[in-house]
Amino acid sequence: MNKERLFVPGLPDEEFLRAAGVPMTKNEIRVLALAKLRLFPGAVVYDVGAGSGSISIEAKLLFPSAQVFAVERDPQALQLLTANQERFGVDLQVVEGAAPTALHPLPSADRIFIGGSGGSLAEIIELCDRKLVPGGWMVINAISLKNTAKAFEALENRGYEVEAVQVNIAVSSQKAAAIMWQARNPVTIISGKKGDGSNAQR
Amino acid sequence: MNKERLFVPGLPDEEFLRAAGVPMTKNEIRVLALAKLRLFPGAVVYDVGAGSGSISIEAKLLFPSAQVFAVERDPQALQLLTANQERFGVDLQVVEGAAPTALHPLPSADRIFIGGSGGSLAEIIELCDRKLVPGGWMVINAISLKNTAKAFEALENRGYEVEAVQVNIAVSSQKAAAIMWQARNPVTIISGKKGDGSNAQR
Amino acid sequence: MNKERLFVPGLPDEEFLRAAGVPMTKNEIRVLALAKLRLFPGAVVYDVGAGSGSISIEAKLLFPSAQVFAVERDPQALQLLTANQERFGVDLQVVEGAAPTALHPLPSADRIFIGGSGGSLAEIIELCDRKLVPGGWMVINAISLKNTAKAFEALENRGYEVEAVQVNIAVSSQKAAAIMWQARNPVTIISGKKGDGSNAQR
Amino acid sequence: MNKERLFVPGLPDEEFLRAAGVPMTKNEIRVLALAKLRLFPGAVVYDVGAGSGSISIEAKLLFPSAQVFAVERDPQALQLLTANQERFGVDLQVVEGAAPTALHPLPSADRIFIGGSGGSLAEIIELCDRKLVPGGWMVINAISLKNTAKAFEALENRGYEVEAVQVNIAVSSQKAAAIMWQARNPVTIISGKKGDGSNAQR
Repeated sequence: MNKERLFVPGLPDEEFLRAAGVPMTKNEIRVLALAKLRLFPGAVVYDVGAGSGSISIEAKLLFPSAQVFAVERDPQALQLLTANQERFGVDLQVVEGAAPTALHPLPSADRIFIGGSGGSLAEIIELCDRKLVPGGWMVINAISLKNTAKAFEALENRGYEVEAVQVNIAVSSQKAAAIMWQARNPVTIISGKKGDGSNAQR
Repeated sequence: MNKERLFVPGLPDEEFLRAAGVPMTKNEIRVLALAKLRLFPGAVVYDVGAGSGSISIEAKLLFPSAQVFAVERDPQALQLLTANQERFGVDLQVVEGAAPTALHPLPSADRIFIGGSGGSLAEIIELCDRKLVPGGWMVINAISLKNTAKAFEALENRGYEVEAVQVNIAVSSQKAAAIMWQARNPVTIISGKKGDGSNAQR
Repeated sequence: MNKERLFVPGLPDEEFLRAAGVPMTKNEIRVLALAKLRLFPGAVVYDVGAGSGSISIEAKLLFPSAQVFAVERDPQALQLLTANQERFGVDLQVVEGAAPTALHPLPSADRIFIGGSGGSLAEIIELCDRKLVPGGWMVINAISLKNTAKAFEALENRGYEVEAVQVNIAVSSQKAAAIMWQARNPVTIISGKKGDGSNAQR
Repeated sequence: MNKERLFVPGLPDEEFLRAAGVPMTKNEIRVLALAKLRLFPGAVVYDVGAGSGSISIEAKLLFPSAQVFAVERDPQALQLLTANQERFGVDLQVVEGAAPTALHPLPSADRIFIGGSGGSLAEIIELCDRKLVPGGWMVINAISLKNTAKAFEALENRGYEVEAVQVNIAVSSQKAAAIMWQARNPVTIISGKKGDGSNAQR
């Protein structure tokens, strides 16, 4: 790893070990998703579909006292996740298995990030809702056409305060003598705050 | 070619012969650039940096009485341009050579589209300005970070009415069971109307 | 109206009479939607939720032999639509009433554009599907979070070939000494081609 | 202020006192700019054109040991900045005056954010470059068409490693029964790292 100081949030993508088949939440989207999560010291955090672990690792570097469960089912991704964990010297709880099943044994969560759902988004949100403490936040990254509405409605139907942010990013990239714009695929970040059961909801 | 009727503007990208090294203005950007050009029957049109010829061909299909000069310096692109011209059965004036030099012998233009500049944008705009009739329109597609301001200022400094439109497009694409968003690189379309020398400019 | 020649597609927004409560499909989105409609001479076209009439008017100016039904329920919009129709000297079939009910008496359509749905999108698509000829195209502009997936799925479930394009546009705007970018709200254009009943679908 | 815990980065825009004439860097752009700044404990930070103070305040909340100079020339903005500083209970160094002049007396900076330039971007970058320590980062938000290239080139010409990120954001917003997308104006964030004088630049 680069000998320079680590600045979080916002680690450069190149700092992470990567592999062709394992998706990674890119720098800008990672930073935005972490902000929407509203992390805090000691928080219990799930990172569902953790992939290469970039969200979990930044969360843990930001709040070393947080307990971060990185849930992933793909063996190649798990290997990468573990290697990245060592590379950054952080201590995640790596959970091997597919969500929602793999989430059952976990303690209640203060914050849940869903970066990948492997086609089971509805079921994952359903269980995550049960696991999330009142007043907790769930943040979902949607990159498919249908998941944006699906995630939004699932949270809305459960009485969450919901907000969605559509993000289109293009990054400069040197090509020959010119600086070209290179687009990233759009991501919608859906954030919901679970009701706390009181009438005095803000 | 597909036996179906040709609908213009907006030919599907797949209808054009393409090659790896030859850029093509994609469907949506092509449609917008053609609209900004404000073509008309009998217009003399330059397509500078014509590439695979998609803009020239749609312009000619829209207004068969227009005279369309497709200017291109790259041999591979010229081959593709010629093949596409035949494929669509249109009659372009193909001009082999690099702009601005290759533009010298051409007649005055009513409309000029600059899709590629090979690093000579300032010189091309300079000569195009001299070739353009009063009241004519010049439309420039900028895909590099620096060309947006460069093109805008070049037209502004020559007294053109200038407008720029930044376009970010993402297209749905089936991947396994999901419909994913695939981003196109952003393009800025700069359109300028040359003054007509009168005081009664609108 | 400006004495200048009318260039279509892509009439400047300022050429249309407008009113605060009546939405208008803006220039760039109008041009893209018209391209996705794949219009042709003599086509029977519905413009559902026609608003100020900008789509209908450009369609009719592009193909004077087309029969364009502009369907609108709001009295203020209808007034504007009629005024715009006169302003551009085109001959639309203005249909007063709410879709889908108002569509029942209309002849079969070759092309259908749905720009506004007043909350009845599912019902409108349902009837439009029955009205659309085999091989015809339906194009839907979605500006709400939920309608993108809803429209896409409705067409997909009916066996249409469907494509969606997400469009983010920003336009230059002079403010004091600077040229500022002004964003338009994002629009998703969903286009579907109805099956023609044959096995030889492309 | 809301009695809830403050989560940084990413304070809700509503938490800040605002005024019509004073621009505020919105939540998502603020979070991204802060990440690009790569802040650290004890850093000396300039916030040039601090406006309502949102960047300065989040920087100080993130790193209480940082020394944050909030530079602003507009009296109304200064009032707001001071009120926001009190509201969040942070201790900024508020510098009244126009950049670049107002920057002269300040100590060397580790990090510089330029959010507003009042038309003097070139001069501000010039002085900021002299104030910035070797290896320090300068981050510039460009919202005008011309400043993107101007800022990029100014850093490039001084030998900085430069990156630009174009950000298009749309936020969900409840209107009647629908969730509509509301676009924010696009912002380009230009980040440059000053050379450290060695040959062993990364």
